[in-house]
Amino acid sequence: MPDVMAPATRAPREPRNGVNTPVLMATINAVKETPSLAKFQFRATNRWVTGTYSESRVESFTGAGGEHTHQTSFGYGADHPAVLVGQDRGPLPVEYLLGALAACITAGIGNIAAARGVTLTSVESRVEGDIDLQGVLGLSNDVRNGYQRIRITFDIAGDAPPEKLRAIVEQGRARSAVFDVLTNGVPVEISVNTR
Amino acid sequence: MPDVMAPATRAPREPRNGVNTPVLMATINAVKETPSLAKFQFRATNRWVTGTYSESRVESFTGAGGEHTHQTSFGYGADHPAVLVGQDRGPLPVEYLLGALAACITAGIGNIAAARGVTLTSVESRVEGDIDLQGVLGLSNDVRNGYQRIRITFDIAGDAPPEKLRAIVEQGRARSAVFDVLTNGVPVEISVNTR
Repeated sequence: MPDVMAPATRAPREPRNGVNTPVLMATINAVKETPSLAKFQFRATNRWVTGTYSESRVESFTGAGGEHTHQTSFGYGADHPAVLVGQDRGPLPVEYLLGALAACITAGIGNIAAARGVTLTSVESRVEGDIDLQGVLGLSNDVRNGYQRIRITFDIAGDAPPEKLRAIVEQGRARSAVFDVLTNGVPVEISVNTR
Repeated sequence: MPDVMAPATRAPREPRNGVNTPVLMATINAVKETPSLAKFQFRATNRWVTGTYSESRVESFTGAGGEHTHQTSFGYGADHPAVLVGQDRGPLPVEYLLGALAACITAGIGNIAAARGVTLTSVESRVEGDIDLQGVLGLSNDVRNGYQRIRITFDIAGDAPPEKLRAIVEQGRARSAVFDVLTNGVPVEISVNTR
């Protein structure tokens, strides 16, 4: 039994929380049968516009044995605010990390609650990241470039007792791709072409 | 001399690449004088909408000794695509990580090139992340939840020889907050309130 289901319940596996629970279970079973379906590659492209402003685009990915195109070509900008010598035309790249963490755990919460037969009323979260920019500005070799710590607080409501709601959040954390990457790190390889 | 400047050049520190280079240098010097100005806290909030879809919002931050509000309240959605039992109303949270990495290094490239007297023509990048979803789906304890590796390729053009352009990208990487977080990880603390 996959973790997403644990602890198993006898609740009917009908669509719930906007999650097509039968399809979710069928997907998990399909991957269980054919593990190679689980191999995905996600992609983004980015184009510098001016100053600290650039635009990213997310269009396609591979996975489940094939190539996929998102329904929409998603584009979004990132910038620095004025106090960091930008023009504030978009969130900072480090702010996107915070939203990604919240969104990843929250998507898991939606799925896990549905699988456990819990109907959610609301899930809200606040994320804070502490950073000392002496690192990025090259003013200290003792200060790291990135966040020193991140805190996330969930407010969750649904038709289950508090301990069951807490267990759903905990399982969302335990199976979050973004939480894993942010807490454990990942090898990043960079290459450069000049023109 | 801060790292962002190294190797120092005699180029005039005029605005370049859309970067207000004099303000950048003044900012670095101000932080050098008063290191507490470098302490920032960034924030995001997130609200679950339905299924795997949630919306994040970025509005304010503290830093440089005060509280700041972004010029715009930035909002953006994240979802899973249909093949991952979502409705594809936004990029995946893990796709936001890829765009954030590219945008962070690219913002640094704009600043560093300006500080080094190099006028850029274009900076484009492609990011790929490999992930095996057996982890997230709870089908294997030997497979991590997050990316196994990330690759980013920059195409950069400007009025400098290839080795100087490469050195600018390398310095962008070396001082990137997102690169640091993704490669080295960061402690994340989670708390839950139930209603």
